[in-house]
Amino acid sequence: MHAGEAAPSGFAATPAPPYWQVVFTSRLSGDVAGYDEMAARMHALASVRPGFLGMESARGSDGLGITVSYWTDPEAIAAWKADLAHRAAQDAGIRRWYAHYTVRVARVERDYRHPAAAHASFGD
Amino acid sequence: MHAGEAAPSGFAATPAPPYWQVVFTSRLSGDVAGYDEMAARMHALASVRPGFLGMESARGSDGLGITVSYWTDPEAIAAWKADLAHRAAQDAGIRRWYAHYTVRVARVERDYRHPAAAHASFGD
Repeated sequence: MHAGEAAPSGFAATPAPPYWQVVFTSRLSGDVAGYDEMAARMHALASVRPGFLGMESARGSDGLGITVSYWTDPEAIAAWKADLAHRAAQDAGIRRWYAHYTVRVARVERDYRHPAAAHASFGD
Repeated sequence: MHAGEAAPSGFAATPAPPYWQVVFTSRLSGDVAGYDEMAARMHALASVRPGFLGMESARGSDGLGITVSYWTDPEAIAAWKADLAHRAAQDAGIRRWYAHYTVRVARVERDYRHPAAAHASFGD
Protein backbone atom coordinates (compact mmCIF):
# COMPACT_ATOMS: atom_id res chain seq x y z
CA MET A 1 0.00 0.00 0.00
CA HIS A 2 1.60 3.25 -1.03
CA ALA A 3 1.04 6.24 1.18
CA GLY A 4 -1.91 8.08 -0.19
CA GLU A 5 -3.75 4.98 -1.34
CA ALA A 6 -6.84 4.10 0.61
CA ALA A 7 -6.33 1.21 3.03
CA PRO A 8 -9.18 -1.09 4.02
CA SER A 9 -10.65 -0.28 7.43
CA GLY A 10 -8.29 -1.29 10.22
CA PHE A 11 -5.26 -1.68 7.93
CA ALA A 12 -2.31 0.73 7.95
CA ALA A 13 -1.37 2.37 4.63
CA THR A 14 2.39 1.95 4.84
CA PRO A 15 4.87 2.96 2.11
CA ALA A 16 7.21 0.59 0.30
CA PRO A 17 9.83 -0.96 2.65
CA PRO A 18 12.05 -0.37 4.43
CA TYR A 19 10.16 1.11 7.35
CA TRP A 20 9.81 0.05 11.01
CA GLN A 21 7.17 -1.66 13.09
CA VAL A 22 6.60 -2.02 16.81
CA VAL A 23 4.65 -5.11 17.87
CA PHE A 24 3.05 -4.70 21.30
CA THR A 25 1.59 -7.96 22.62
CA SER A 26 -0.31 -7.65 25.89
CA ARG A 27 -2.63 -9.29 28.33
CA LEU A 28 -4.79 -7.11 30.51
CA SER A 29 -5.11 -7.54 34.22
CA GLY A 30 -8.52 -7.71 35.80
CA ASP A 31 -8.72 -3.92 36.22
CA VAL A 32 -9.62 -2.46 32.83
CA ALA A 33 -11.40 0.69 34.03
CA GLY A 34 -10.12 3.57 31.90
CA TYR A 35 -8.13 1.33 29.59
CA ASP A 36 -10.09 2.02 26.40
CA GLU A 37 -9.86 5.78 26.94
CA MET A 38 -6.08 5.56 27.50
CA ALA A 39 -5.62 3.41 24.39
CA ALA A 40 -7.63 5.82 22.25
CA ARG A 41 -5.70 8.78 23.63
CA MET A 42 -2.35 7.10 22.97
CA HIS A 43 -3.42 6.30 19.40
CA ALA A 44 -4.41 9.92 18.85
CA LEU A 45 -1.11 11.17 20.30
CA ALA A 46 0.97 8.71 18.27
CA SER A 47 -0.79 9.55 15.03
CA VAL A 48 0.47 13.12 15.04
CA ARG A 49 4.08 12.23 15.92
CA PRO A 50 6.79 12.77 13.30
CA GLY A 51 7.47 9.52 11.48
CA PHE A 52 4.20 7.80 12.39
CA LEU A 53 2.86 5.76 9.45
CA GLY A 54 -0.11 3.90 10.90
CA MET A 55 -1.41 1.43 13.46
CA GLU A 56 -3.29 -1.88 13.52
CA SER A 57 -4.82 -3.45 16.61
CA ALA A 58 -6.74 -6.56 17.64
CA ARG A 59 -7.73 -8.06 20.99
CA GLY A 60 -9.34 -11.46 21.17
CA SER A 61 -11.96 -12.78 23.52
CA ASP A 62 -9.18 -14.60 25.43
CA GLY A 63 -7.74 -11.22 26.46
CA LEU A 64 -4.57 -11.34 24.37
CA GLY A 65 -4.07 -8.16 22.35
CA ILE A 66 -1.64 -7.25 19.57
CA THR A 67 -1.07 -3.66 18.45
CA VAL A 68 1.35 -2.91 15.62
CA SER A 69 2.49 0.65 14.98
CA TYR A 70 4.46 1.63 11.88
CA TRP A 71 7.19 4.26 11.74
CA THR A 72 9.63 5.73 9.25
CA ASP A 73 12.75 5.06 11.33
CA PRO A 74 13.94 3.91 14.78
CA GLU A 75 14.59 7.46 15.91
CA ALA A 76 10.88 8.23 15.57
CA ILE A 77 10.10 5.18 17.71
CA ALA A 78 12.59 6.21 20.39
CA ALA A 79 11.18 9.74 20.46
CA TRP A 80 7.66 8.41 20.87
CA LYS A 81 8.78 6.10 23.65
CA ALA A 82 10.36 9.03 25.42
CA ASP A 83 7.28 11.18 25.02
CA LEU A 84 6.17 12.16 28.47
CA ALA A 85 2.48 11.53 28.01
CA HIS A 86 3.21 8.15 26.54
CA ARG A 87 5.62 7.34 29.34
CA ALA A 88 3.01 8.30 31.89
CA ALA A 89 0.54 5.98 30.21
CA GLN A 90 3.15 3.24 30.17
CA ASP A 91 3.74 3.66 33.87
CA ALA A 92 0.03 3.65 34.59
CA GLY A 93 -0.34 0.63 32.36
CA ILE A 94 2.33 -1.25 34.21
CA ARG A 95 0.58 -0.61 37.48
CA ARG A 96 -3.01 -0.93 36.42
CA TRP A 97 -3.82 -2.51 33.11
CA TYR A 98 -1.22 -4.95 31.89
CA ALA A 99 -0.56 -8.31 33.46
CA HIS A 100 2.13 -8.92 30.83
CA TYR A 101 3.38 -7.24 27.70
CA THR A 102 6.13 -7.66 25.16
CA VAL A 103 7.42 -4.98 22.79
CA ARG A 104 9.42 -5.85 19.67
CA VAL A 105 10.99 -3.18 17.47
CA ALA A 106 11.72 -4.41 13.96
CA ARG A 107 12.80 -3.20 10.54
CA VAL A 108 10.35 -4.22 7.80
CA GLU A 109 12.27 -5.62 4.84
CA ARG A 110 9.42 -6.91 2.67
CA ASP A 111 5.66 -6.73 2.52
CA TYR A 112 2.91 -8.07 0.32
CA ARG A 113 -0.85 -8.14 0.39
CA HIS A 114 -4.10 -9.38 -1.02
CA PRO A 115 -5.63 -7.87 -3.06
CA ALA A 116 -2.18 -7.27 -4.55
CA ALA A 117 -0.60 -3.83 -4.82
CA ALA A 118 2.06 -2.90 -7.34
CA HIS A 119 5.13 -2.44 -5.19
CA ALA A 120 5.15 -5.45 -2.93
CA SER A 121 6.28 -9.00 -3.46
CA PHE A 122 7.98 -11.67 -1.42
CA GLY A 123 9.43 -14.97 -2.41
CA ASP A 124 7.87 -15.02 -5.85
CA MET B 1 12.24 -13.98 27.35
CA HIS B 2 15.07 -16.37 26.79
CA ALA B 3 14.32 -19.62 25.01
CA GLY B 4 13.62 -22.18 27.67
CA GLU B 5 11.96 -19.73 30.03
CA ALA B 6 8.25 -20.18 30.44
CA ALA B 7 6.22 -17.58 28.57
CA PRO B 8 2.79 -16.45 29.78
CA SER B 9 -0.08 -18.08 27.90
CA GLY B 10 -0.40 -16.67 24.38
CA PHE B 11 3.06 -15.07 24.37
CA ALA B 12 5.96 -16.38 22.30
CA ALA B 13 9.18 -17.24 24.14
CA THR B 14 11.64 -15.65 21.73
CA PRO B 15 15.43 -15.52 22.25
CA ALA B 16 17.46 -12.33 22.51
CA PRO B 17 17.43 -10.30 19.25
CA PRO B 18 18.15 -10.34 16.42
CA TYR B 19 15.46 -12.67 15.12
CA TRP B 20 12.65 -12.19 12.58
CA GLN B 21 8.92 -11.66 12.76
CA VAL B 22 6.11 -11.91 10.22
CA VAL B 23 3.06 -9.78 10.93
CA PHE B 24 -0.05 -11.06 9.16
CA THR B 25 -2.97 -8.63 9.39
CA SER B 26 -6.22 -9.90 7.95
CA ARG B 27 -9.92 -9.39 7.65
CA LEU B 28 -12.13 -12.40 6.99
CA SER B 29 -14.75 -12.52 4.31
CA GLY B 30 -18.23 -13.65 5.18
CA ASP B 31 -17.41 -17.32 4.53
CA VAL B 32 -15.53 -18.60 7.56
CA ALA B 33 -16.52 -22.28 7.33
CA GLY B 34 -13.38 -24.33 7.89
CA TYR B 35 -11.24 -21.31 8.76
CA ASP B 36 -10.53 -22.23 12.38
CA GLU B 37 -9.46 -25.74 11.38
CA MET B 38 -7.15 -24.39 8.69
CA ALA B 39 -5.61 -21.86 11.09
CA ALA B 40 -4.98 -24.52 13.72
CA ARG B 41 -3.45 -26.84 11.13
CA MET B 42 -1.18 -24.09 9.80
CA HIS B 43 -0.05 -23.28 13.34
CA ALA B 44 0.75 -26.95 13.96
CA LEU B 45 2.67 -27.22 10.68
CA ALA B 46 4.61 -24.00 11.30
CA SER B 47 5.57 -25.00 14.82
CA VAL B 48 7.64 -27.95 13.61
CA ARG B 49 9.43 -26.03 10.83
CA PRO B 50 13.16 -25.38 11.16
CA GLY B 51 13.71 -21.90 12.54
CA PHE B 52 10.25 -21.45 14.04
CA LEU B 53 10.40 -19.62 17.39
CA GLY B 54 6.76 -18.99 18.28
CA MET B 55 3.47 -17.37 17.33
CA GLU B 56 1.01 -14.88 18.81
CA SER B 57 -2.48 -14.23 17.50
CA ALA B 58 -5.52 -12.07 18.22
CA ARG B 59 -8.75 -11.36 16.36
CA GLY B 60 -11.12 -8.71 17.60
CA SER B 61 -14.87 -8.58 17.50
CA ASP B 62 -14.62 -6.21 14.52
CA GLY B 63 -13.12 -9.03 12.45
CA LEU B 64 -9.59 -7.64 12.17
CA GLY B 65 -6.96 -10.23 13.07
CA ILE B 66 -3.21 -9.99 13.68
CA THR B 67 -0.97 -13.05 13.80
CA VAL B 68 2.75 -12.66 14.47
CA SER B 69 5.12 -15.56 13.86
CA TYR B 70 8.76 -15.50 14.98
CA TRP B 71 11.67 -17.08 13.13
CA THR B 72 15.42 -17.39 13.42
CA ASP B 73 16.19 -15.99 9.96
CA PRO B 74 14.58 -14.91 6.68
CA GLU B 75 15.52 -18.18 4.97
CA ALA B 76 13.28 -20.05 7.43
CA ILE B 77 10.42 -17.68 6.56
CA ALA B 78 10.94 -18.15 2.81
CA ALA B 79 11.01 -21.93 3.23
CA TRP B 80 7.77 -21.85 5.20
CA LYS B 81 6.15 -19.65 2.59
CA ALA B 82 7.16 -22.11 -0.10
CA ASP B 83 5.88 -25.08 1.85
CA LEU B 84 3.30 -26.74 -0.30
CA ALA B 85 0.69 -27.29 2.38
CA HIS B 86 1.03 -23.71 3.46
CA ARG B 87 0.80 -22.50 -0.11
CA ALA B 88 -2.34 -24.55 -0.65
CA ALA B 89 -3.86 -22.98 2.45
CA GLN B 90 -2.82 -19.55 1.23
CA ASP B 91 -4.52 -20.17 -2.09
CA ALA B 92 -7.65 -21.44 -0.39
CA GLY B 93 -7.51 -18.46 1.95
CA ILE B 94 -7.30 -16.02 -0.90
CA ARG B 95 -10.35 -17.53 -2.48
CA ARG B 96 -12.43 -18.29 0.55
CA TRP B 97 -11.50 -16.71 3.82
CA TYR B 98 -9.67 -13.43 3.49
CA ALA B 99 -11.24 -10.25 2.22
CA HIS B 100 -7.89 -8.50 2.74
CA TYR B 101 -4.53 -9.31 4.24
CA THR B 102 -1.13 -7.75 4.60
CA VAL B 103 2.12 -9.56 5.38
CA ARG B 104 5.18 -7.75 6.70
CA VAL B 105 8.52 -9.50 7.15
CA ALA B 106 10.79 -7.71 9.61
CA ARG B 107 14.05 -8.12 11.50
CA VAL B 108 13.62 -7.63 15.25
CA GLU B 109 16.37 -5.37 16.56
CA ARG B 110 15.21 -4.83 20.15
CA ASP B 111 12.64 -6.19 22.54
CA TYR B 112 11.57 -5.57 26.09
CA ARG B 113 8.79 -6.74 28.36
CA HIS B 114 6.87 -6.45 31.59
CA PRO B 115 7.49 -8.10 33.94
CA ALA B 116 11.08 -7.40 32.95
CA ALA B 117 13.53 -10.07 31.81
CA ALA B 118 17.28 -9.77 32.05
CA HIS B 119 18.35 -9.47 28.44
CA ALA B 120 16.07 -6.88 26.97
CA SER B 121 16.03 -3.14 27.16
CA PHE B 122 15.15 -0.29 24.83
CA GLY B 123 15.64 3.39 25.13
CA ASP B 124 16.63 3.30 28.78
